[in-house]
Amino acid sequence: MSSDNAPSAGSPKPLFRMPLQLRWSDLDAFNHVNNARYLTFLEEARIRWFDSIGEEWVTDEFAPVVVSVQLNYRQPIPYPADVVVELGVERVGTSSTTIAHRIVNADGRTLYNDGNVVAVWIDRKTGRPRPLPDSIRSAVGA
Amino acid sequence: MSSDNAPSAGSPKPLFRMPLQLRWSDLDAFNHVNNARYLTFLEEARIRWFDSIGEEWVTDEFAPVVVSVQLNYRQPIPYPADVVVELGVERVGTSSTTIAHRIVNADGRTLYNDGNVVAVWIDRKTGRPRPLPDSIRSAVGA
Amino acid sequence: MSSDNAPSAGSPKPLFRMPLQLRWSDLDAFNHVNNARYLTFLEEARIRWFDSIGEEWVTDEFAPVVVSVQLNYRQPIPYPADVVVELGVERVGTSSTTIAHRIVNADGRTLYNDGNVVAVWIDRKTGRPRPLPDSIRSAVGA
Amino acid sequence: MSSDNAPSAGSPKPLFRMPLQLRWSDLDAFNHVNNARYLTFLEEARIRWFDSIGEEWVTDEFAPVVVSVQLNYRQPIPYPADVVVELGVERVGTSSTTIAHRIVNADGRTLYNDGNVVAVWIDRKTGRPRPLPDSIRSAVGA
Repeated sequence: MSSDNAPSAGSPKPLFRMPLQLRWSDLDAFNHVNNARYLTFLEEARIRWFDSIGEEWVTDEFAPVVVSVQLNYRQPIPYPADVVVELGVERVGTSSTTIAHRIVNADGRTLYNDGNVVAVWIDRKTGRPRPLPDSIRSAVGA
Repeated sequence: MSSDNAPSAGSPKPLFRMPLQLRWSDLDAFNHVNNARYLTFLEEARIRWFDSIGEEWVTDEFAPVVVSVQLNYRQPIPYPADVVVELGVERVGTSSTTIAHRIVNADGRTLYNDGNVVAVWIDRKTGRPRPLPDSIRSAVGA
Repeated sequence: MSSDNAPSAGSPKPLFRMPLQLRWSDLDAFNHVNNARYLTFLEEARIRWFDSIGEEWVTDEFAPVVVSVQLNYRQPIPYPADVVVELGVERVGTSSTTIAHRIVNADGRTLYNDGNVVAVWIDRKTGRPRPLPDSIRSAVGA
Repeated sequence: MSSDNAPSAGSPKPLFRMPLQLRWSDLDAFNHVNNARYLTFLEEARIRWFDSIGEEWVTDEFAPVVVSVQLNYRQPIPYPADVVVELGVERVGTSSTTIAHRIVNADGRTLYNDGNVVAVWIDRKTGRPRPLPDSIRSAVGA
């Protein structure tokens, strides 16, 4: 919507980048990627990031859950498009972390979406927050 | 996550309520409704609300697009569950409106999610904002 | 595609009927319900049917898996539409059952899809077929 | 399900191969790729194949629609997995073509799914079958 929606040069370097294989089924009847699908893209990038750490971040005992999301839709995503999801960290707490994102075109010229997702690690038996796993604490730069 | 997450008695009366037919496919591998699906539920409620007005809100000339969303995940949604989506209006602008939501259990005892979605009406040829259709302006109480 | 695609009077009485709440997100960019979504509708109807039996049909020990599907797309499903999924049984084996379906309009005048799905019950530890649960055997009329 | 489900050496050479970026959201609550999602994978491969021809295969005047599908689920797909979709042609008619598929692991050792999809090209105004576009007729080897 903005007249100048190029990613600003001052943005922090992302900690993880995932080239996304867009699917035609990501489109809705308006012929644009549906707004709900962006959360799926972010989820996929988080999981691949956490998996890339090489240590356990989800087990029978603990798992992350999304507690809030804030997304800004800057430009519609067409199909086909070379989409890249970039993740960084805005804040690290005891049990939770705020993961900032930018969904961009691979050519770096178009910002499709930015915002953040707050994830909290919970004890799967009690459902209550527990400290971040060490691997995640380390990955997010705490 | 909160110890007392019952919908507060002071919440404004919703302008539209949609009982949702939950699908098992809304679950993810954690056996809870996936976080992306909530946006689909909100989208469905918006469309049914706007359709219920009985006047045109999307045409070849204009259509709404989502510009931002903010969602708070209060409690996971299991399957099966009697889910109801409630929509209200937080703000009305020239071209956009902020639609607040609460996703609750039909028994009124559990708040699953709240937050809001900002939608802007655009001219489909130019992609630029245009005034809200009269039908929508009237429906949202402007 | 056929010139006369009304459900034939001679069709067997379905064992389970599920009125479906169609979602706008079931549409794809061609503005019709996407072909993959029909399997989701059938899955939902199977689960509600099996749940309605009131006995265990999926446990930590056993679960059904789909082994094959055959679907005929007779008419595109628009949105909105009053869609009903009808399930019946074509065949019952030791470990598997062939569940026939018809996806129709609630007015009975339009057949959207017919065909069948073969489900086999497996031992979740070994992944190997095991006899149908008694509840299912009874439900499918064996 | 079969004891020997390696792709047989005698299978015809596929006309198109698409490495698929699997998503965690493709899993269902049983922790396997959901059976409906396979049709999405096949759709994506078809579209990329047809797009790769470099000539029009869908326009305002004509488009393909799926008229029937037959899928055999041989092995569940876990996440993560290196999945490849292979497409070939079984039959070419005047207006329709039968596209055979095999969904396999990239290592060639596991066949996840095989079967076929019949697509017919229709006139978008009348909804009636029309001859295959020349580009498609050529691509499918007719």
